[in-house]
Amino acid sequence: MKLMIVIVQEQDYAELATLLIRNRIHATRFETSGLYSNKKNETLFICVEDEQQEQILDYIRESCTERKESCQVWEYNGNMMVQVEKTLKIGGATIFISEVKDIMKF
Amino acid sequence: MKLMIVIVQEQDYAELATLLIRNRIHATRFETSGLYSNKKNETLFICVEDEQQEQILDYIRESCTERKESCQVWEYNGNMMVQVEKTLKIGGATIFISEVKDIMKF
Amino acid sequence: MKLMIVIVQEQDYAELATLLIRNRIHATRFETSGLYSNKKNETLFICVEDEQQEQILDYIRESCTERKESCQVWEYNGNMMVQVEKTLKIGGATIFISEVKDIMKF
Repeated sequence: MKLMIVIVQEQDYAELATLLIRNRIHATRFETSGLYSNKKNETLFICVEDEQQEQILDYIRESCTERKESCQVWEYNGNMMVQVEKTLKIGGATIFISEVKDIMKF
Repeated sequence: MKLMIVIVQEQDYAELATLLIRNRIHATRFETSGLYSNKKNETLFICVEDEQQEQILDYIRESCTERKESCQVWEYNGNMMVQVEKTLKIGGATIFISEVKDIMKF
Repeated sequence: MKLMIVIVQEQDYAELATLLIRNRIHATRFETSGLYSNKKNETLFICVEDEQQEQILDYIRESCTERKESCQVWEYNGNMMVQVEKTLKIGGATIFISEVKDIMKF
C-alpha cells in the first residue's frame, strides 16, 4: 500500500471528492494554501492499494484542470516583499506517491 | 528514524496527547477531516526513533477506540451528492509509517 | 525528486517564505501546532529537485533560529493535565526528507 498526497485547487475539490466518495476511496483532507499564489487549496491523504492507483489518478485527471487566473502574489521589488496582481497558470493537481513501510488501522 | 503520520478521532485525541506528552514524545498536530464522514479529526506528525515505535503504537491502541456513531455523510443519489444520516463504524486510528531519508533539526 | 516536510516557527515563517518565493521554490503550506508547547507553527510541503536540496536547507538555516520563549505547556501533575508557564528552547526547524516514488503534476 502507498500513501498518496494530493494537492488540488479549491474549485476542483468538490468534483474530485464526489468521484472518490462514489468509489468508496477513503481519504483525510485539510486546507492548505500555495506559498506563492496565496490561493487556498485542499490536500488529501489517500491510502492506496496498488491496484487502485491508476483508477485514482484517472479521477484526479478527470476533475482537476489547469486554468489561468488572476492572483495576488508576493514579489520582491528589490527592497521588500509586495503583493502584486498577476495572471498565473494555476496547475491542476500535485501528487506525491510514497511507499510506506507500514499502514495500520486500529 | 521514521515519520509516523497518525490520524485519530477528535474524541480520542486528548487521551493520546496526554500519553505522548507524559512520555516526552514530540509531535506536530493539525486539524483534518474525513472525506466521507465529514467528521473532524486530528493528524499528528511524530518523529520516531526505531526503539520507540512499539511503545508509541501501544499508546495509540490504548487511547483510540473504534465506535459506532451517527454521521452526516455524502452520498450520490444517482443524480447529485446529498447528505444522509448514517450510523458508521468510526475507526480508531490510521497510521502511516515511512522511512525518511533524513530528519534534521536546526 | 523528494518531498521535504518543513516545520518552522510562526515568527520565522515570513523570512523563509520570502527566500523561497524569491528563488521560485514552490511549496504548499498549512498551519500546525506543537503538541507539547501548544505554539502555532507553519508546515511546508516542498517538492525538491536533488540539486536544489542544499540550497533550500541553507534558506532554512538562514531564516529559522532557535530561541528561548515563555510558553504555556501541558504537564501531568500526577493527577491530571495542567497548563504551566515554562521557558522552553523553541527549536529552529524540523525537516523530514523522503524519497517519493512518484511526483506528478496534472
